[in-house]
Amino acid sequence: MPELAPHWIVRLEDDAVVVLDQRRLPAEEVELRCANAAEVAEAIRTLAVRGAPAIGIAAAYGLALAAANGEDLDAAQGVLLASRPTAVNLRWALDAMRDDPSRERAERIHADEVERCRAMGAHALELFPAGARVLTHCNAGGLATGGYGTALGAVRAAFEAGRVAQVWVGETRPLLQGARLTAWELEGLGIPHAVIPDGAAASFMARGEVDIVVTGADRIAANGDAANKIGTYSLAVLAAHHELPLVVVAPTSTLDPTARSGDEIPIEERDPAEVTPRFPARNPAFDVTPAALVSAIVTERGVHRAPYAASLPREAAAAR
Amino acid sequence: MPELAPHWIVRLEDDAVVVLDQRRLPAEEVELRCANAAEVAEAIRTLAVRGAPAIGIAAAYGLALAAANGEDLDAAQGVLLASRPTAVNLRWALDAMRDDPSRERAERIHADEVERCRAMGAHALELFPAGARVLTHCNAGGLATGGYGTALGAVRAAFEAGRVAQVWVGETRPLLQGARLTAWELEGLGIPHAVIPDGAAASFMARGEVDIVVTGADRIAANGDAANKIGTYSLAVLAAHHELPLVVVAPTSTLDPTARSGDEIPIEERDPAEVTPRFPARNPAFDVTPAALVSAIVTERGVHRAPYAASLPREAAAAR
Repeated sequence: MPELAPHWIVRLEDDAVVVLDQRRLPAEEVELRCANAAEVAEAIRTLAVRGAPAIGIAAAYGLALAAANGEDLDAAQGVLLASRPTAVNLRWALDAMRDDPSRERAERIHADEVERCRAMGAHALELFPAGARVLTHCNAGGLATGGYGTALGAVRAAFEAGRVAQVWVGETRPLLQGARLTAWELEGLGIPHAVIPDGAAASFMARGEVDIVVTGADRIAANGDAANKIGTYSLAVLAAHHELPLVVVAPTSTLDPTARSGDEIPIEERDPAEVTPRFPARNPAFDVTPAALVSAIVTERGVHRAPYAASLPREAAAAR
Repeated sequence: MPELAPHWIVRLEDDAVVVLDQRRLPAEEVELRCANAAEVAEAIRTLAVRGAPAIGIAAAYGLALAAANGEDLDAAQGVLLASRPTAVNLRWALDAMRDDPSRERAERIHADEVERCRAMGAHALELFPAGARVLTHCNAGGLATGGYGTALGAVRAAFEAGRVAQVWVGETRPLLQGARLTAWELEGLGIPHAVIPDGAAASFMARGEVDIVVTGADRIAANGDAANKIGTYSLAVLAAHHELPLVVVAPTSTLDPTARSGDEIPIEERDPAEVTPRFPARNPAFDVTPAALVSAIVTERGVHRAPYAASLPREAAAAR
C-alpha cells in the first residue's frame, strides 16, 4: 500500500524548510521552499502546511533552520508560535526544540510523530466494528501529521485489518480539506471512499449508512473537550443523536492540561473571504466538542474513556 | 424596500417562458428564454429556476406555452413533471393547469403564490422573538417562490416589524444557494446578514448566537415530516439539541397528504460532480426532517403545531 513519505511532506534542507504545498492539492504536487523562520510561519499561516502535528513538525524544522541561519531564536520562536493560535502542538514542538535547536532534534520529533501515529492506529483498532462505514472530517491523514495520520491513520490501520468497508469524507468547507486532501490520500491508499457535503452527514446517519465518526484534534483540554476543524462539533451532536460513537485520535502533544475546559482554548477566526468574497461572512476555523459527546480519545499511549480528567492530565505530565 | 418583481423572476411571453437564470447569480443577471415545454423542463432540471413554488410556477407557464404552441399537452405535462422528483408543487401546479392551460390561469397561479407568501409572513410573525438572530438554509426567498419568499418572506416580514437583528445564511453546499442567492436577496433588502459554512451552524448555536431556525420545504407529508434542501435535517437535530425552535414556512401546495410520512417522499440524487468532479462523491439533494423536530409549520392559512396529522391533511383537502 503506497505511503506518503515523511520527507516528502516536510523536510529540512541546508538552506530551506521544504513543504508540499497543500493548497495546490489535488490539482498539482508542488514544493514550497521556506528560507527562514518567518517564511515557515507564513507557510503555516496560509495553510501551505496544515494539521496540528504537521505544523508542530514544520515549526521544529523552522527553528532548526533559524539556528543554522544564525537568526535570533527568540524572534524565530515568537513568529512561529504566532502563526496559528489553536493547535497546541506548535507550542509543544517549539518548547521541545529550545534546548537543542538542531536538525537532528527536529528530525527526531518528525520521526517520533509518525511512530506515534502508527501506535494510535494500533490502539484505535478495537473501536472499529467489522465492516465499518466510517465518517471522517477535514484531513487528519499523512499530510496533517508528517506521514501516517491520526484519525486517517486509524482508519488505514483498521482497513488493513479488514474492518473498514467505506469512508465517507466530509468535504469540510470552507477550504475543502476533506474533498481535496483526505479523498486524495484515500485514493492513493486504495480505500473505498466518497465525498459528501458537510450538511449531508446527518442524512447518511439517519439512513443507517454510518457506523463510527473518527476525527483528529488540534487541542484537547484537561477535561477532554476537544478543539478541531469547524464542523466537528456538529458531527458530534449528530452522532450522539443517532447513537453513533465519535472517536478522537490525536497524539499526546495535542493535550493541553493548562486549559481546564474548551472555554480556555483560543479559536482562530480566519478571513471571511475564504467563505465568500462577495457578501459578509463569518469564518471560525475550529469548534469545541464537549467531552460528553466524545466516546473515546486515542493517543499513542492508549484509549481514554470518560471521565477524561482522570487520565488525560496524567498522560500529558508523563510525556513531558 | 426593494422587491424582486415577480415578472422578472419568471414570466410568459408570446413565444417563450423567460426565467432569470439563477445559476449565474450573484455574478450576473441573465435571462434565459425557453421556447417550449421541454426547454422549461430543462431549465428546471438544471436549476436555472429552482425552489419548490417557483418551479411550480415555471411549469404552469410551460404548460400554457405548450398549449399556445399546439404541443401535445400530455407529453408536455410528462416532461415537466419528470424534471425534478421531490417538490410536490410541480405536480400541484400542473394538475391545476390541465382544465385551463391558459396564460391567464398560469399568471393567476403565480400571483396567488406571491400573495400566499405575504400571508405566510404575516402568520409567522408571532414566532419570531424580539431582536431575533435567525439562521436560514438554502434559498426560500423571492427567487424560489416567484416574488416574495416563504422562509425568507417570513424573515423579511419580521424584519419590517422590527423583530430581526441578524440573519445567518447557511451557505448550502454543494450549490451554494445560501451564499449566492439568499445573501444576494438580503443585501438587496438591506437586512443584516452573514454567510456561514454549513458545518459552522452548530458552533453559532452553542455560542448562543442563534434564536430561531427558519427554512422552506419542498414536500410535507401528512404527518408533518418535511423534505427540504440537504442540510435541513442536520439543522433540525442541532436546533433540538440547543433547544432552539425550527420553523418550516411553506404554502399549502407543498403539502402531500398522499405521502403518509417522509419515508414515502422520493429524494432526488443529483450528479456527484456537483460535489467534486475529481473523486467519488454522493449528492442527495434533499433530506427529510421528522415532524418531531419541527416546532411549527406555517402556511398561508395559519400556524400548524404537532400533532400535524390532525390538521395538515384537512388543510390540504380544503385547498383542493
